[in-house]
Amino acid sequence: MVSIAIMGHGVVGSGVAEIITTHKNKLYTSIGEEVYIKRILDLREFPDSPLADRFTKNFEDIINDREIRIVVEVMGGINPAYDFVKRSLKAGKSVVTSNKELVAAKGAELLQIAKDNNANFLFEASVGGGIPIIRPMSQCLVANIVDEIAGILNGTTNFILTKMIDEGMDFDTALKLAQELGYAERNPEADVEGHDACRKICILASLAFGKHVYPEYVHTEGITKITLKDVKYAAAWGGVIKLIGKVKMLENGKMDIMVAPMLIPCKSQLANIDDVFNGIMVRGDCTGDVVFYGKGAGKLPTASAVVADVIDCCKHLKTRKYLFWTDGDSSNVIDYKDSVSSFYIRVKSDDKDAALQSAKELFGNISPIALDEYEGECAFVTEPLKYSDAENYVKALADKGYETLSMLRIGDL
Amino acid sequence: MVSIAIMGHGVVGSGVAEIITTHKNKLYTSIGEEVYIKRILDLREFPDSPLADRFTKNFEDIINDREIRIVVEVMGGINPAYDFVKRSLKAGKSVVTSNKELVAAKGAELLQIAKDNNANFLFEASVGGGIPIIRPMSQCLVANIVDEIAGILNGTTNFILTKMIDEGMDFDTALKLAQELGYAERNPEADVEGHDACRKICILASLAFGKHVYPEYVHTEGITKITLKDVKYAAAWGGVIKLIGKVKMLENGKMDIMVAPMLIPCKSQLANIDDVFNGIMVRGDCTGDVVFYGKGAGKLPTASAVVADVIDCCKHLKTRKYLFWTDGDSSNVIDYKDSVSSFYIRVKSDDKDAALQSAKELFGNISPIALDEYEGECAFVTEPLKYSDAENYVKALADKGYETLSMLRIGDL
Repeated sequence: MVSIAIMGHGVVGSGVAEIITTHKNKLYTSIGEEVYIKRILDLREFPDSPLADRFTKNFEDIINDREIRIVVEVMGGINPAYDFVKRSLKAGKSVVTSNKELVAAKGAELLQIAKDNNANFLFEASVGGGIPIIRPMSQCLVANIVDEIAGILNGTTNFILTKMIDEGMDFDTALKLAQELGYAERNPEADVEGHDACRKICILASLAFGKHVYPEYVHTEGITKITLKDVKYAAAWGGVIKLIGKVKMLENGKMDIMVAPMLIPCKSQLANIDDVFNGIMVRGDCTGDVVFYGKGAGKLPTASAVVADVIDCCKHLKTRKYLFWTDGDSSNVIDYKDSVSSFYIRVKSDDKDAALQSAKELFGNISPIALDEYEGECAFVTEPLKYSDAENYVKALADKGYETLSMLRIGDL
Repeated sequence: MVSIAIMGHGVVGSGVAEIITTHKNKLYTSIGEEVYIKRILDLREFPDSPLADRFTKNFEDIINDREIRIVVEVMGGINPAYDFVKRSLKAGKSVVTSNKELVAAKGAELLQIAKDNNANFLFEASVGGGIPIIRPMSQCLVANIVDEIAGILNGTTNFILTKMIDEGMDFDTALKLAQELGYAERNPEADVEGHDACRKICILASLAFGKHVYPEYVHTEGITKITLKDVKYAAAWGGVIKLIGKVKMLENGKMDIMVAPMLIPCKSQLANIDDVFNGIMVRGDCTGDVVFYGKGAGKLPTASAVVADVIDCCKHLKTRKYLFWTDGDSSNVIDYKDSVSSFYIRVKSDDKDAALQSAKELFGNISPIALDEYEGECAFVTEPLKYSDAENYVKALADKGYETLSMLRIGDL
């Protein structure tokens, strides 16, 4: 019997308890021992829970219990999760977490503490919910040199964009619907401003390239400025707008990493990932593109990924999994202004031909998007160029009277 | 240093040697030791290989070398691979293989021998080439009860069908092109008749449900009878024809397993998997649908999956991975005639309305497919029914003068 503790009894935490209870036989078969939930930490009371006798409000009941070998952290947020996880690892207990904020902010430090104490620190559920991604990347694709990772990493924004694309709903209406359906928080900032996706691409980048990438190094744009007009122009171009978290290893050994809405061609495997689903593309030198698709959030998908990590810890109580990266600093990441991509640019213009002619003089080769639905404006796609150059040309275009209404990157995916 | 032997120096085998050589540092980082290719078994001569001094034509040089801890089998076929693998495992050496024919035919026995000798028997590359699937299923999705697996498991047939769908090429022309491009063998039977896909769905079914499913239990249909007309009707219905390997666990504890071309709705994640790419959908009770996509074959993708298994063996030289299933028999599988699905049926008829009326009287509710391109025939889709019932109705329809020209299952994916 392996005794574990679960810290947090919210959506994911109650899901973990549920799966361990309902899938008892499946777990027994794969571990060869029973998993016993000895303690559940939560400040709230759950008198009607079948596990009511296991609840505690005091972390000391967990840290001081030598029988508890594995601690599941599903509280979310940095504090007090960070302190509790650190103390658990220092006590030699393995920790499993679904907390992307914690892993993105403190991953390198916690992995080092785990290593020093011969314990495991696993976080499959922190990216992609129920989609296997951390373990496939660290084990199955280990014989590859990963060049690039790009993904739709946030279900809420993908739901909103899908409603805009498929049903012509505007951003505010789609956000309201997402809130009504429970897909978006009342304060949706972490999702719609891209912070959630940013944490996830930080974790994937750290894992792939071995150095911790902190969220503050990563240029992050949300989807609040995306209009239905942009969606229509994207369709006329032959694509869709998706919020993409993306990291690419450049030849100079630095990472080009960002989160931003991008135009993706319809033929891309990421273009067909709709609603609350997530999809992650990993480009390896041997495998080529591999894509993982599934539910990126939700009680049972996320909880099942947590439980898979618990099982892995049970099988490796005495040995460490080789999941590790070292600390990193901002010198590993290029300035987003130096990042190169093609751009979709929509400008105000009463004379479309003149505007496109001016654009051509500045940007060089451009491809106008054939859509005549909207008066007083036009849109075009540039060749690949640096963001800083694009910014300068946009300014010059404005000086000529053609104000830019939107500018989005083209995702080469 | 961990010494290994590679049996077979064909496409995959030379790829394994190449990756171990070129990705030396990556491997060292993840194992903490060097992987040394001590022997390569092949009957041919490779005097120009940088590893020329390691070649042998004699298996005894491998089996008798106690330093060799891991044997990679990439010869293909049952004989002599089966004998060599069995002897290697009995000698306590771990074995990694990409040989789907061997795993599908002898998996249960070899897993048992591996277990008895405290060795590992790993075969990530046997299904989906470079796509991680065996390890994600056995580790990441282990907290799920898998209900169903369905996949596009053969790249050659998917290439042919994609050419038929996208370019209106007929089967024979598409097959010829596949052969010219090296995607199909000169004798393409194993691919186009579905045998290759059958072996792969057998491996996935055995892994998911814990009992070996032998290929001879699995009803297998190829794509040789698919016509361009069927492709057009599928499009008019709103879908595409794909060769699907599929297994579903029924409530009676038996498997509904088969390989057959099926009509898949365009919105399915499997519908957009084109050319030589593979895609595998795993439906878990907690995760819902998870899809894995990538290159299902090819030298480096397949070899990189083999090397990932080698790395895993290096990390588990003294402990066994919990990858296991027991032997099984045909009583675990239902007769394909009892399998229930909707059907697409295309019939000869000079009077379309009369034919559809007769079909309705036999099949019950049907949905005619609105396509008037072809004279003297029509097509419809049935409600879900048993294959044996569908067969009887087709016979009765022929008795009324409406001969069935094609009949395909609808994939509920």
